[in-house]
Amino acid sequence: MQRYFIQKGNWQDDHVTITGDDYHHIVNVMRMEPGAEILCNHPDGNVAHCKIAKVENETVFADILHWLDSETESPISITIAQGLPKGDKWEFILQKATELGASRIVTFQAERSVVKWDDKKVSKKIARWGKIVKEASEQSHRNQIPTVDGVLSLQALLEESQSYQWKFFAYEEEAREQQSSKLHDYFSKINKGDTVFVCIGPEGGFSVNEVEQLKAASFQAVRLGPRILRTETAPLYVLSSLSYYFEEMR
Amino acid sequence: MQRYFIQKGNWQDDHVTITGDDYHHIVNVMRMEPGAEILCNHPDGNVAHCKIAKVENETVFADILHWLDSETESPISITIAQGLPKGDKWEFILQKATELGASRIVTFQAERSVVKWDDKKVSKKIARWGKIVKEASEQSHRNQIPTVDGVLSLQALLEESQSYQWKFFAYEEEAREQQSSKLHDYFSKINKGDTVFVCIGPEGGFSVNEVEQLKAASFQAVRLGPRILRTETAPLYVLSSLSYYFEEMR
Repeated sequence: MQRYFIQKGNWQDDHVTITGDDYHHIVNVMRMEPGAEILCNHPDGNVAHCKIAKVENETVFADILHWLDSETESPISITIAQGLPKGDKWEFILQKATELGASRIVTFQAERSVVKWDDKKVSKKIARWGKIVKEASEQSHRNQIPTVDGVLSLQALLEESQSYQWKFFAYEEEAREQQSSKLHDYFSKINKGDTVFVCIGPEGGFSVNEVEQLKAASFQAVRLGPRILRTETAPLYVLSSLSYYFEEMR
Repeated sequence: MQRYFIQKGNWQDDHVTITGDDYHHIVNVMRMEPGAEILCNHPDGNVAHCKIAKVENETVFADILHWLDSETESPISITIAQGLPKGDKWEFILQKATELGASRIVTFQAERSVVKWDDKKVSKKIARWGKIVKEASEQSHRNQIPTVDGVLSLQALLEESQSYQWKFFAYEEEAREQQSSKLHDYFSKINKGDTVFVCIGPEGGFSVNEVEQLKAASFQAVRLGPRILRTETAPLYVLSSLSYYFEEMR
């Protein structure tokens, strides 16, 4: 069944009103008519099974039939902080990290980031980023849309990370050392409901200076398996492993 | 250190000769000269630390200094069989599945594959596929290059799968049923050295007919976390989880 994320103001008692892009999708793309059924996600994470009552004035009016009991959100609240990568990799990461259950996805200007984005460029992109994570949330049947932010400075990132219980950074050098701490040494201590912050470098990895700042801010260096992963593959490894351990094993 | 995969015939006693693309890369791209050190991967999976002795006649002559003791290959031999997807997703999967440790990566013509490739089209592409997995193996510091094959029929795929110890297919319907078998129920029974075959549908998933054939060939339906993953995300989830469980937990 088609799924739509509906803003808080559009919910009244047991009715939902749908406008804008979602109205267009329902009426012009899906060609639904009164009687058709859809899923509507409330911003609080709950999902309502709804039936379309009428369509008028560029608005779809739907009645809530019942609330669903579905668990598609990770029991761990995880933020992915990605060193700004080249080309369209950031948009790729937004889509894939959403599918794989991230709560928050932010990018930061790393020393070795090849591209530099100023606020003007970001302000043009932010709506597009929101659209990517909204569509990926709908497609993957999530109940929450991840929050997106960027491009932060490393300093802003470290300040934000202070409120998190677990902080890691992917460090290529660790992959080569078999005696280093393994991801599981940390995952095994995390409890459901905990908050996790994972920082990943851009294509060239972290600079020595950045590694020092991360360590000073209580980030633990982890390896992500014994192979060297590209920057855009690293968050997918973290999120898949976290899902496997907390959603499929326990 | 730069890494090159060298064919068996180019190894003699404690010397290696390097020609073709790799010669070009060493001499023209990296601009290395006698005295420079490189890593050379033997097809048997061993890696030699080498020093360039001389460069002449479009050939690099290198001496083996010593053999490395490195473990970057998964203890589980895993084949990813991917329903032929749209656009450039197959090449994306080749690169990412290599980074994440797959032994063999094959594609098959699924009923719901939107594109159809004939042998003529495949024969033009196969060299490019080989190049993608070779480069991804070098970049991720693997000791083995995965084998690539396609486009197989489902029947050929099922015949090939007979020699494997564990056979799974990703089934979207299972993700919605919380009581279904979890990936871990199977992973927990797999031993290091075992062979695993994982079959993933194209964008539209498997047809009812294909699901019946897979089940008849002893494939187990598994869910890959509670969210619905895109076809190109599914193999990354499987490989990351397998790496986490067998390389980072145990």
